[in-house]
Order: sequence, then structure tokens, then C-alpha cells
Amino acid sequence: MKIIGIADTTFARFDMASSAIDELGSTGSGFRIERYTVPGIKDLPVACLKLFKESGCDIVMAMGMPGSKPVDKISAQIASQGLMEVQLSMGRHIIEVFVHEDEASDEKELGWLMDRRSREHALNAYNLLFNRKELSENAGRGLRQGFEDVGPVAGQTASGIRH
Amino acid sequence: MKIIGIADTTFARFDMASSAIDELGSTGSGFRIERYTVPGIKDLPVACLKLFKESGCDIVMAMGMPGSKPVDKISAQIASQGLMEVQLSMGRHIIEVFVHEDEASDEKELGWLMDRRSREHALNAYNLLFNRKELSENAGRGLRQGFEDVGPVAGQTASGIRH
Amino acid sequence: MKIIGIADTTFARFDMASSAIDELGSTGSGFRIERYTVPGIKDLPVACLKLFKESGCDIVMAMGMPGSKPVDKISAQIASQGLMEVQLSMGRHIIEVFVHEDEASDEKELGWLMDRRSREHALNAYNLLFNRKELSENAGRGLRQGFEDVGPVAGQTASGIRH
Amino acid sequence: MKIIGIADTTFARFDMASSAIDELGSTGSGFRIERYTVPGIKDLPVACLKLFKESGCDIVMAMGMPGSKPVDKISAQIASQGLMEVQLSMGRHIIEVFVHEDEASDEKELGWLMDRRSREHALNAYNLLFNRKELSENAGRGLRQGFEDVGPVAGQTASGIRH
Amino acid sequence: MKIIGIADTTFARFDMASSAIDELGSTGSGFRIERYTVPGIKDLPVACLKLFKESGCDIVMAMGMPGSKPVDKISAQIASQGLMEVQLSMGRHIIEVFVHEDEASDEKELGWLMDRRSREHALNAYNLLFNRKELSENAGRGLRQGFEDVGPVAGQTASGIRH
Repeated sequence: MKIIGIADTTFARFDMASSAIDELGSTGSGFRIERYTVPGIKDLPVACLKLFKESGCDIVMAMGMPGSKPVDKISAQIASQGLMEVQLSMGRHIIEVFVHEDEASDEKELGWLMDRRSREHALNAYNLLFNRKELSENAGRGLRQGFEDVGPVAGQTASGIRH
Repeated sequence: MKIIGIADTTFARFDMASSAIDELGSTGSGFRIERYTVPGIKDLPVACLKLFKESGCDIVMAMGMPGSKPVDKISAQIASQGLMEVQLSMGRHIIEVFVHEDEASDEKELGWLMDRRSREHALNAYNLLFNRKELSENAGRGLRQGFEDVGPVAGQTASGIRH
Repeated sequence: MKIIGIADTTFARFDMASSAIDELGSTGSGFRIERYTVPGIKDLPVACLKLFKESGCDIVMAMGMPGSKPVDKISAQIASQGLMEVQLSMGRHIIEVFVHEDEASDEKELGWLMDRRSREHALNAYNLLFNRKELSENAGRGLRQGFEDVGPVAGQTASGIRH
Repeated sequence: MKIIGIADTTFARFDMASSAIDELGSTGSGFRIERYTVPGIKDLPVACLKLFKESGCDIVMAMGMPGSKPVDKISAQIASQGLMEVQLSMGRHIIEVFVHEDEASDEKELGWLMDRRSREHALNAYNLLFNRKELSENAGRGLRQGFEDVGPVAGQTASGIRH
Repeated sequence: MKIIGIADTTFARFDMASSAIDELGSTGSGFRIERYTVPGIKDLPVACLKLFKESGCDIVMAMGMPGSKPVDKISAQIASQGLMEVQLSMGRHIIEVFVHEDEASDEKELGWLMDRRSREHALNAYNLLFNRKELSENAGRGLRQGFEDVGPVAGQTASGIRH
């Protein structure tokens, strides 16, 4: 039985964790979920560390919604650096699921995007844990989480573009 | 008996620590407070480290007021990175309560904002220590500390926004 | 028998790993390859750490294609910092092969650039492992990976430019 | 007998260390001083580390004058991050006394500012070591080192600004 | 017998290492040199780490020429942060000798600057190893490596500028 941790915030304007949990539930089994909610994204790294160390998680999803002001962008960067440090000290993946508030043009799109990205990254977390072959087969395929996949560049063959 | 550490600065233009201490006192019991004042925000991380290691704090609030010049913004970033490092090396939360001087339009609003944010983050610190369920129940609810909560995006249901 | 690790992403729009593997195969022998595909560039550092620790790699190539938006630039920076940390904790080289999407003027050039840079950096990885003398002999020669070499500044003699 | 370390540079345009040493001498006793001069600000962190580890310093002042070009601002940031790391690995304070060359409008003001800030931060170092109560009593009082103190926001009472 | 390490790149457009080696040779004795060439500046930190750990160097010079594009500036920053980490983990100095391609107005000046800065920093490395008194005597004297020294601010006396 694997354990998938989900860390999220009260700052975000959408319950991304519930989307991820719903998607994981309809994707497979063999895991259970531990959740840890903190005030903001800069509190996520310690939450993830505790999910690994105290709850024994095998992988963690860190959900957050950085605001649109310059100070929020810096916060997102510091949060990401913290998540990186936790990953490297534990040797385990944290899937960072951040939706910047200004990625969406209105509130409706924002909710849609936060739901979609959470669900698609839930699949990535699942595949890293149970099905790494699925990821290898999609290497270099221009996949995106939330908005449409952009796909691979044209003219690419199985043996690469020769020069 | 839990210990809540409060680190603050002589640089800030408002005694944020007193607001937090006042709020904590009217919120609950079962804790005592240790305080450590330093000159500026870049001195906060060592203060927090000492509050954890020498005073045995279970959580720390780091209060500061970064100035409005570009050099102050960089200082805030370095201070935050230091606070992150301390959190990860100790495995305990530091609630960063920073009010940027240019968030407020005048001196009066600045004082109001520093008081409010200190109080609302005092509640976050209290909840992380004694009542994590309160945070989980507010996941994704668009909470803010200081200015008004923005709330969740419209159209969100208990089971998320379906696509 | 040396082991060369290759970490890549599903986000990139070209299968850079295959170009590198193809080039390595036609360059020499005495090594085998381990591959690890992750969703995005911020997932590369843990992949590289695992390639070193779990697969025993002697050197790793980290292939990625940062997007063109400001948020992508920050992601690239955080990914690079993570790759740096892994290198220093392991004491082994990671050759970072990043092609920024906006380095190329169109999709065709993008594919060409990703292929070329992957191949030329595959040679760098090979030389760091088997033939460091080749690198020393090219010190200060203005070499580039992908676009044309710019070469050394004019007027340089074997004994330097005297003042 | 405490030991106060002072690290400074040949790059700076004023002998800040001498100002600090002069001020410390007229402030109190019970300490001696160790000095370590390096070429530039990015060399300060190792100097500070050696002052702690090899000279047994209890606190260190790191004096520097970052230049006014963008590349100098990045250097200052990297130097500060290094000073932060040293502080956290040693669990002791480094008072960073940086005067950016473009903080002053002319050479005369620059010299005045470098002298003043060095002296006022020498007092901070002294207080952190011998008289922390002095700092606590000035928490939130808007103190500055070099230019005039800005003071606390108006309307603040002993019990904070109530909402 | 001390060991001075020199790490350099194939990316740079001038053989800075040879300038430094030439200068060191005409400055003094009591040391030998170990050299390690890598592709680019982000590969320098591991090279320096290996020069310390595997070759037993007492000090290392890291020579590089960051390009002029924004992405090159970020690379320089990451390289510098890596060099800082290596210094702090080893407790030994790395003299970073970076010449940004856009510091010079043309190719000729670029070559001249790379030669000069390499030579003047070679003296700094030598002094840190054998003659720290030389550095102390020049504290706050406005020294530069490459372009002309700017010198100390006017009006400075042996006892500082009094206020």
C-alpha cells in the first residue's frame, strides 16, 4: 500500500486537493491519501516534509495558487525552492501543482484551470509511482497540464531530426 | 505546554509582536511565548533558529516590514530563503508575517495592516499547533491575512468543477 | 563499464534523449545508458538524484525545454539550482541540456536546435567521463552547443594578450 | 572574553572596519576583535566561516560596498545568501553592513554613510552579544543605520492599533 | 607545497587559465597548479569540488565568461551560487574570475580585460594563500580587477570620517 501526500493552502481560491483526490480515486488503487493544509504556499515545504517523514508518504502533490503581484511571484519562487530542497533531502518526488492567478482571464477559467491541472498532475503522480513506462513513452511529446497539449515539433521522426 | 516563538525587528515601524501576543492571549491557552528582537529582517532566520534550538519553540512567527526600495525587496527574498532553510532543517513551521511598506497607501493604513496581519497569522500559528482541522476545512477558500478575504472562485461545488 | 544517466521530460517538444543516445552510440563504447522520464524540468533534479543513487550513474544528462513565459524562466532557474545541488551532494557532473523555446525562431529551427545541442552535449558528457584532455585542449576556444561556435577573441597568442 | 569578527574587502571605497572597531572600542569592553580582509563581497562568506571556526568568533560583522551595476546587485545577492548559509550552519549572527555605492549622491555622502552605518551596526552587534534587552525595547521603532531613523507609524499605542 | 586549482571552460573566448598560470609563475613559488576544464560555467562548481576533494587544492580559481543574453545572466547567477556552496562546504576560498561578455565594447577590449582580470585575481589568490597582510593593508582602498582601481573616497583619514 503506497501513500500519496497532498499539501494545500487556505489562500488558494479553489479546492485543488479534492480534484486530485477525485481523479486518483478513478485512476487506480493500491494507495491511500494523507492531506495537510497550511495557510500559504511558503508553508507548503514543511508540510511536505512532514508528509514524508511523519506520514511516510511515497510521493507528495503540493497544490497552490500564487497571486498576481510581484511579491506573490517571489513567494512562489521561494516556495518552489523549498519544495526542491525537500525533494532532494528525501530523494522523493513532489509534484508541484501551482496555478498562477493571472494565468486565467476570469474567475470561471481560473476554476476550470485549477481543476484540470490538479487532475492531470494527479495522473503524473500516479504514473511516477506505479507506471513510469507511461511517462517514458511520452518523452518529448509536448504534454501540458491544464491547457491543451502543444505536441512535438513537426518533422520529428523516430530517429530524430538529422542534420 | 507548547512554546510559540516570536522574532521581530527594530527596523519595522510597528510593534507587530505585541499584536500577535495580544491575539494569541485572547485565542487560547496551553502555550507560552518566547521573543527575540533583531535589527533587520535578514537577522530573523538565526533568531528563529535559536528560538527553536535554544528555547525549544514548537512554532515561530517571524515578523518584519521590508522597505519599498529594490534593495529592500532583495533583502526580503534572502530573509525568506533563510526562514525556509530554518524550517526545513528543524522540520517545524515558521509563519512569516511580512508587511511590505508599499502595500499600504499611507502611514495609518500601514499600522492597521501590520496589526491585522499579525493577528490573523497568530491564529494560523495557533491552528497549526492546536487545531489543524480548522485549516483543512478552509482549504481553497481564498483566505487572506490583513486585507479582506477574496473567497473561492464562483461556481465551485463540493465535488469540484467538472469539465 | 560506466553508466550514463539521461533524464528528460514529457513537457519538451522534442525527444532530446534519443538524439543524445544516438550520438553516444556512434561516439564510443564502454558505457551503458539509464533513462528516467518525468513530467517537467522541476522534476529533473530528483530524477538525476535517483539515477546517481539507485542506478549508480557516473554522469547524468538532464534534458529540458523551458517555455517562453516569465513563469517558465523562473522554473528553469529553480530546476538548474536543483541540478546544482544534486551535483554538489554527489560530487558528479550533470550536463544540463536546456533549450529555451524562444531561442528558436520557428518550430523547425527549434527541432534542429534541440537535436544539435543534445548531440554536442552528449560529446561533452562522453569527454568528461573518458577524455578530459579533449576539453582542456579547447579551453577558452569559444565553443557552443547547438548554434555555431563563436571562437576565441582575435589577437590571442599561445602566451596570452600581453598588456 | 567574547570575540567579534570583522570581515571586509579591498573593493570597498572606505575602511568600514576601522569605523566599526573605533565605535566598539568606545562602547564597551569584554571582547576582542579578529579581522579578515578579502578582495570582494563574494569572498566574505568563507572569511566569516573561518572567523567562526578558526578564530572562535561569537558574532561577525561583514562589511562591503556593492557597486551600482546590475552585475554588482547580483553579486550582493549571492554574497548575502552565502552569509545567510554561514549563519545558519553556525547558529550565530553575522551583521551584514552593506552600503550600495548608489545609495549616496556623491563621494562625500558615500564616505559619511559608510562610516555611520558601520558605527550604528557595531552597536547592534554589541547589543546582540551583551545587551539584547536594548533591542527588544526598540522593537517596531523604525530604526535605521546610516540615514535618519524613520520612527514608528503615528497613532500606535502601547497596546497596538485596535481595529 | 600548496596546490592552487584552476577550473575553466571551453565556452569562454579567451584562455584565462593560461594568463593566471603565467602570472602566478612570476609572482612566487611554493605551490603547484591543478587544472580542470569543463564545457560551461554551470559545470565549474563540481570541477572546483573535485579540485578540492580529489586533488587536495588549498584554493581554487574559477574562470568563466558569461554571455550577454538574459539566460546567460541567470546561468552566471546559478554558477556563482554553486561556487558559494562549494566554498562553504569545504571552508576554502574560490576566487571567481568572471568576465561578462558585455563588459567590453569590442573583441579586443574583451581579450585585454579577460587577461588583466585573470592576472590580478591570480595575485588575490596568491595573497589569500601566502600573504593575507597585503590584503588587510588594502582594505577599503577601492581596488578593482581588470579596469582601473577607483580608489578610496576623498576626505578619508586614518581615523575615519567623523560625523
